[in-house]
Amino acid sequence: MVTTLARRFLPLALLSGAAAAQVPPLSAADSEPAKLGWMQGSPPAIDKQVRFDDASMWFFPRTRWSFSHWRELVPTAAIPRAGPPSALPRAERRDLDAIRFTPLGATAPMTWEQSLAANYTDGIVVLHRGRIVHERYFGAGGPANQHIAFSVTKSFVGTLAETLIAEGRLDPARTIASYVPELATSGFGDATVRQALDMRTGIAFVEDYVARGTELTDPTRMSIAGGAAPAAPGYQGATTTPAFLAGIGKRGGHGGDFAYLTPNTQAVAWVLERITGQSIAAQISARYWQPLGMEEDAAIQVDRVGTGFAGGGMTAAMRDMARFGEMIRLGGKWQGRQIVPPAAVRAILAPGDAAAFAAANYPGLDGGSYSSFWWHWASGQTMAVGIHGQGIYIDPKAEMVIARFASFPVATNRVINPTTLPAYDAMAAALAGK
Amino acid sequence: MVTTLARRFLPLALLSGAAAAQVPPLSAADSEPAKLGWMQGSPPAIDKQVRFDDASMWFFPRTRWSFSHWRELVPTAAIPRAGPPSALPRAERRDLDAIRFTPLGATAPMTWEQSLAANYTDGIVVLHRGRIVHERYFGAGGPANQHIAFSVTKSFVGTLAETLIAEGRLDPARTIASYVPELATSGFGDATVRQALDMRTGIAFVEDYVARGTELTDPTRMSIAGGAAPAAPGYQGATTTPAFLAGIGKRGGHGGDFAYLTPNTQAVAWVLERITGQSIAAQISARYWQPLGMEEDAAIQVDRVGTGFAGGGMTAAMRDMARFGEMIRLGGKWQGRQIVPPAAVRAILAPGDAAAFAAANYPGLDGGSYSSFWWHWASGQTMAVGIHGQGIYIDPKAEMVIARFASFPVATNRVINPTTLPAYDAMAAALAGK
Repeated sequence: MVTTLARRFLPLALLSGAAAAQVPPLSAADSEPAKLGWMQGSPPAIDKQVRFDDASMWFFPRTRWSFSHWRELVPTAAIPRAGPPSALPRAERRDLDAIRFTPLGATAPMTWEQSLAANYTDGIVVLHRGRIVHERYFGAGGPANQHIAFSVTKSFVGTLAETLIAEGRLDPARTIASYVPELATSGFGDATVRQALDMRTGIAFVEDYVARGTELTDPTRMSIAGGAAPAAPGYQGATTTPAFLAGIGKRGGHGGDFAYLTPNTQAVAWVLERITGQSIAAQISARYWQPLGMEEDAAIQVDRVGTGFAGGGMTAAMRDMARFGEMIRLGGKWQGRQIVPPAAVRAILAPGDAAAFAAANYPGLDGGSYSSFWWHWASGQTMAVGIHGQGIYIDPKAEMVIARFASFPVATNRVINPTTLPAYDAMAAALAGK
Repeated sequence: MVTTLARRFLPLALLSGAAAAQVPPLSAADSEPAKLGWMQGSPPAIDKQVRFDDASMWFFPRTRWSFSHWRELVPTAAIPRAGPPSALPRAERRDLDAIRFTPLGATAPMTWEQSLAANYTDGIVVLHRGRIVHERYFGAGGPANQHIAFSVTKSFVGTLAETLIAEGRLDPARTIASYVPELATSGFGDATVRQALDMRTGIAFVEDYVARGTELTDPTRMSIAGGAAPAAPGYQGATTTPAFLAGIGKRGGHGGDFAYLTPNTQAVAWVLERITGQSIAAQISARYWQPLGMEEDAAIQVDRVGTGFAGGGMTAAMRDMARFGEMIRLGGKWQGRQIVPPAAVRAILAPGDAAAFAAANYPGLDGGSYSSFWWHWASGQTMAVGIHGQGIYIDPKAEMVIARFASFPVATNRVINPTTLPAYDAMAAALAGK
């Protein structure tokens, strides 16, 4: 008995490389959690467990279960909804599964339905002119399930920041340290809020989720501090997010090329909490989850002192993510009420500095840009992007919003985008009747 | 920076005695969480933190915050609601605050309103003939907040068990080990399900929450295994609830006097999970939270392998607890639908073995009894009772249900009942127009 329930400890140094180590990974169909039996039984057999304390929650194919069961693995703060859910009319079209497109870099076409499997989609909602035209669930979730959104969280923080800027409560030209003195001696010390919002600081952090080696990677150290990964015996690093941020050094100057570094979002979130006196969870609830009439509560993973993981810790239900994207598409309005100030929406939807983005040589995103923790495509779309395939895609011209949760085996968008972006374009064309 | 965020570690051996050590404790008014500033600030100052990893979440007056913020401290599994909330009509009476009664063992009378403070009430709902006649919130919560219910959880497990018995799927005369072979060599080995349901097993466990000493108490060891208290460096005990249960020995024979021991509930919950193939959370959602039209999701604290703490880990919103009690009062029916089989409700509301209960010499509960994880008063009421003042009180004669959450400083009902039971009687009399 004790043997089968003994605590295991996987080498955390290998954590970030674990997904990539699965070559080839199981397919979406073969990695369905129900099929693999994760966490079934009381207690689950040791080879069917998905745990925090051995880091197994981070290893594909267990991620296909853990990404939909986040609150069962880590402490989370609620982002409460309020009142009855707002209407989200349905106008489903059965023909959309058969849409065909050619993945980037491929020659053979693929159907929309096949792309959902190729992307290990857990849930997807397509809104056209505010109506649900397509909705599917796979994996361990369903419409009411809260899936981890990872870096889609950042775009909520960016929207909060642009809102405070529009309200005159946040000056993006001021330094982060002028709001949060605890960061004065860190790499953030002389960075402005705008430089962090646009991911153009020179902090010393390597955002690599597929590196392999014997040392803890920066994202793993960040996860340990944020309470999302276990600390091995003898661990001497930061045990809270504020302490982790304060300990980040400087690699180069600020205001240079685009460099996607998650601590930038956490620093901005700290600024927002200092200005408002409210946690990020409370701000998202008061500004979005309650007034938008969300169907389900959302939540955010918290560290040992209650700090929400603003860089990637939100969990939410699929349709609520779609509601948020649709509200942005509609200029910040939702069912007659202005939710986000028009100036903030303009700031969110406007492209960022294309030259700074191009210099960073982000593969597959030619002509794109990044600003206010949102991605911008050259063809006019704006997107919230989370690792492993999470996203809120806003296409103003096509009057289309797509929200997706996924558990793609590899933690890099360079292998997810090829079957995502052309599929979204094909969906837009189909909805336009082209 | 690092200094103010350093991890502290309080002596866990003192954990169970911590509350009692506060003499006299701060009053309810003086211990209001907003006043004391728990978890305010980003990050909260070290003396304002309420944490899992240093066990401070268990120490009054921090408990006045932690009991309303459970999911921020430990992993929890959702108990989802579904659809719009069911109606709970309001007929509030402003005169009820002034009801007077004399606490047990006292000579001076007290008002109902004073009793709420005396009991460190966080939330209370009084239903009379299904209508809310009185509702108050204090402390860190509110109507939508999920408060830890502690051993009120047991009565949900008892209701599930009596339901499976009524459905012919659970034989209470069979041994626990016949359903859960993993417990065959434990103290539960030859105990029947009925003996556990009625708290009449002879397992070796000391249910003392106010003991002081240098050794870990049984409840603390149970909490460490269940993920509700941190394991100190070098801890060698069980790290999951199943392992903890399997390691419990036998103190005496089964079927004797009433002995309130939480592991009995966890063993029965294990039986229920084995029979149904569903977690306790999933069963409570499917059988109660969804069909009753609860307003908010509930949840249950889980251990490292997902085991719900069936002995005391539920969190829920106040009105939803009242709905559950009202459904039991109405013979298992809710708004025209039979939720719990009539035979199960009869089993829940019927008194247990009074002689077995009397022999255990439970102070202040003369003539009472205990069965199916519910308490029975001599005067005909049935109650779900949780440590620190949680309760669902069902008074069939008075057509009254009271649900309460509290954060009483001392973890024993012997000091809570004197201002609770006569207050409830006075409320019943007032509602009857006496």
